[in-house]
Amino acid sequence: MAKTAKKTTAIGVDIGGGSVKLGLVSSDGKLLARSSFLTPRKTKHHFLDVLCAHIRDLQATARQRGLAISGVGVGAPGAIDVERGFVYFFPNIDGWENTPLKQILQTHLRLPVFVDNDANAMALAESYFGAGKKAKSMIALTLGTGIGGGMVFEGKLFHGSHFSAAEMGHLIINENGPLCACGTRGCVEAYVGTSYFVREIEKRLKKNKKSILHKWLKQGKKLSPQLVGEAARAGDALSGQMWRDVGQKLGTALTGLINILNPDTIVIGGGIAENWPLLYKPLVRTLNKKAFPIAARSVKVVRAKMGQEAGLIGAAALAFTAKNK
Amino acid sequence: MAKTAKKTTAIGVDIGGGSVKLGLVSSDGKLLARSSFLTPRKTKHHFLDVLCAHIRDLQATARQRGLAISGVGVGAPGAIDVERGFVYFFPNIDGWENTPLKQILQTHLRLPVFVDNDANAMALAESYFGAGKKAKSMIALTLGTGIGGGMVFEGKLFHGSHFSAAEMGHLIINENGPLCACGTRGCVEAYVGTSYFVREIEKRLKKNKKSILHKWLKQGKKLSPQLVGEAARAGDALSGQMWRDVGQKLGTALTGLINILNPDTIVIGGGIAENWPLLYKPLVRTLNKKAFPIAARSVKVVRAKMGQEAGLIGAAALAFTAKNK
Repeated sequence: MAKTAKKTTAIGVDIGGGSVKLGLVSSDGKLLARSSFLTPRKTKHHFLDVLCAHIRDLQATARQRGLAISGVGVGAPGAIDVERGFVYFFPNIDGWENTPLKQILQTHLRLPVFVDNDANAMALAESYFGAGKKAKSMIALTLGTGIGGGMVFEGKLFHGSHFSAAEMGHLIINENGPLCACGTRGCVEAYVGTSYFVREIEKRLKKNKKSILHKWLKQGKKLSPQLVGEAARAGDALSGQMWRDVGQKLGTALTGLINILNPDTIVIGGGIAENWPLLYKPLVRTLNKKAFPIAARSVKVVRAKMGQEAGLIGAAALAFTAKNK
Repeated sequence: MAKTAKKTTAIGVDIGGGSVKLGLVSSDGKLLARSSFLTPRKTKHHFLDVLCAHIRDLQATARQRGLAISGVGVGAPGAIDVERGFVYFFPNIDGWENTPLKQILQTHLRLPVFVDNDANAMALAESYFGAGKKAKSMIALTLGTGIGGGMVFEGKLFHGSHFSAAEMGHLIINENGPLCACGTRGCVEAYVGTSYFVREIEKRLKKNKKSILHKWLKQGKKLSPQLVGEAARAGDALSGQMWRDVGQKLGTALTGLINILNPDTIVIGGGIAENWPLLYKPLVRTLNKKAFPIAARSVKVVRAKMGQEAGLIGAAALAFTAKNK
C-alpha cells in the first residue's frame, strides 16, 4: 500500500558570512536533521557544489525516513529579487553579484526553491512557529551590530516594490543625531546597535568614576551590552541609565512604526534583547507615552522565541509559505 | 430585451465636519451626479434621515439613467472599525460614539455599504483613478492643518490590526523637536502642518526685517503657506529658506517611511502641496541623500491628481474595491 499521508518537510538553508547551516524542517517547525559547512571563499561555483551536495544528503535522509520534501528555502545575507530568487549581491561574500540562485538550484536539485534575505527568513520563523504565531500583523526586529527586520502581514512577508522593505534600523528618530553606518544622521540603529552602545558607554564612563564597570574592566572584563546589563542588574546607576536610554530610543522608533502600521505584535530578538527586562520596561513606557492610544493598545511587544535556529527554520518556512499561496 | 450590460456605479458619501457630499460615481471614476447638505448638528437620527434621503435621490437618478449601483461607500472623519463599518467616534461631530453605521444604512437602503475613514478614501481615489493608478504599492499623504494618509498595497487599503494604520503625520523625526498636537515631540506634523508653518515663519520674520512679507502683511495680506510660497517665487530669501526647510523635514519623514515600506509611489496632496516645486525639490534631494539607495531609486514622488473630489470618489471606490475582493 502506498503511503498516502507522508509527513511534509522542507530544507532550510541559512547562508552566513562565516558558515552555511542546513536543516530538514517539518511543517510544524521541528528541526529533524541538520548539517553545516564553513562558507567557501574560493569560487561561487565551488560554493554551489558543496551546497548542493549537502542538500542532497538531507534529501537522502528524508527519503530514508519516508518524508516528502516540498521545497528548499534559502535565507541569504544580501539584496535579493525575491520573485526571481536572484541575488543582486552579498555585502560580506565576494563573487555573488547577479546570481540567479533559484534557477541554478532548481536545475540541479529538481525541487522548488525559494530565496529571501535572512532577516525576512527570521521574521517568518517567528510568525509561523515562534512569538508571532497568533499575530495577524507582525513586525520582527533583530538587534545586533545593526538592526535587521521583517514584516509578516496575514501570513505573508511584506517585501515592498523592490524587495527592500523592512529596513527597521533606518527609521530616523533624531535628524540631528549621531551618524549611522548608512550615512544618515539619527537612525535608530545609530543609538541601539552594539557598536554605538559600547562607544556611548565608554564616553559616559569617562565622566562617571563611580560605576562598578571601572572595576570590572580592570579585572579584564570586556565592555559589551551584556556586561552593562549585568552591572545594571547589580544596581549600577550609570548602567541602568544607559539601558533606560536605549529602551527609550527604541521605543521612539517603534512609536513611528506602530503609528504607521498598527501591528498587533512586535517581536524583538538578537543580542541586545537578551537583557529583556532592562530593554522592555523603558521601551513600553515610551510607546505608551508617545504612540497613538489605539496603536499602543493594539500591540504586544514580545521577545523572540526561535533563538539561533530562527534563520534556518525560517528559510524552510519560505517553502511552506509559498506552497500555501 | 433586458439590458445585460448595465454600467456599474457606486454612491460615494464624504462626511465632513462642515458638510456632507454625495456623488454617483462610475466604475471608471467619473462623477455622474452629486448632492450635498450641511452637516446636521441636531441628532444622529436626523442626520441619518437626511443622509438616506439624499442617497435615495441618487438611487433614483441612477435608475432613470439605467445605471446599476453596486453599493454605497462612506468616508468618515473619525475612528472606524472597517470590517464592521462601525464608528467608534468622530472627533468633530458629537453624538456618533459607537454607531453601527454600515448596519443601519444597509437596513434602510438594502444596498451593500462600506465605511472607512476619509483619509483612506482619498488614498484609494488616487490609487484607483489618480496619481497612483499604476502603483503596486502606494502611500498617499494629505498635507493640511494636520497630515492625513493612507496606504494601498496591491490594490488594497492597508488598515493594520485595529484599523488605525497610516498615521503618517506621527512619524517622529526629532525626539527633541517641537510638541505635536498629539502630545509627542518632533512628529513630522509638528513641522509641516499649516499652523506650525505659520508660527515658525512669524518667529523668523521677527529676526529678519528685509523680507518682502513685512510689506505684504502691512498691505493686509494674511500669513499662510500660500503667501510664503508667493514670496519665495518672487525671490524672497527668508520664504525660500522656509520652504526648503519644510521640504527637508518632510523628506526626512519619508526617508524612514520608504526604508520601511519600499513603496513605488508616494502621492502628496493638500494645501501645502499646492506649492509643488517649492516642496518637491528639497524633499527629493533629502530622500536621495538619506534613504537607502534601492528604496530611493524605487520610488516616484508625485502630486495628487484627484483634488477636491478625492474623498467623494474614493468613498465610492470603497464599494468597487470590496466587489473586486
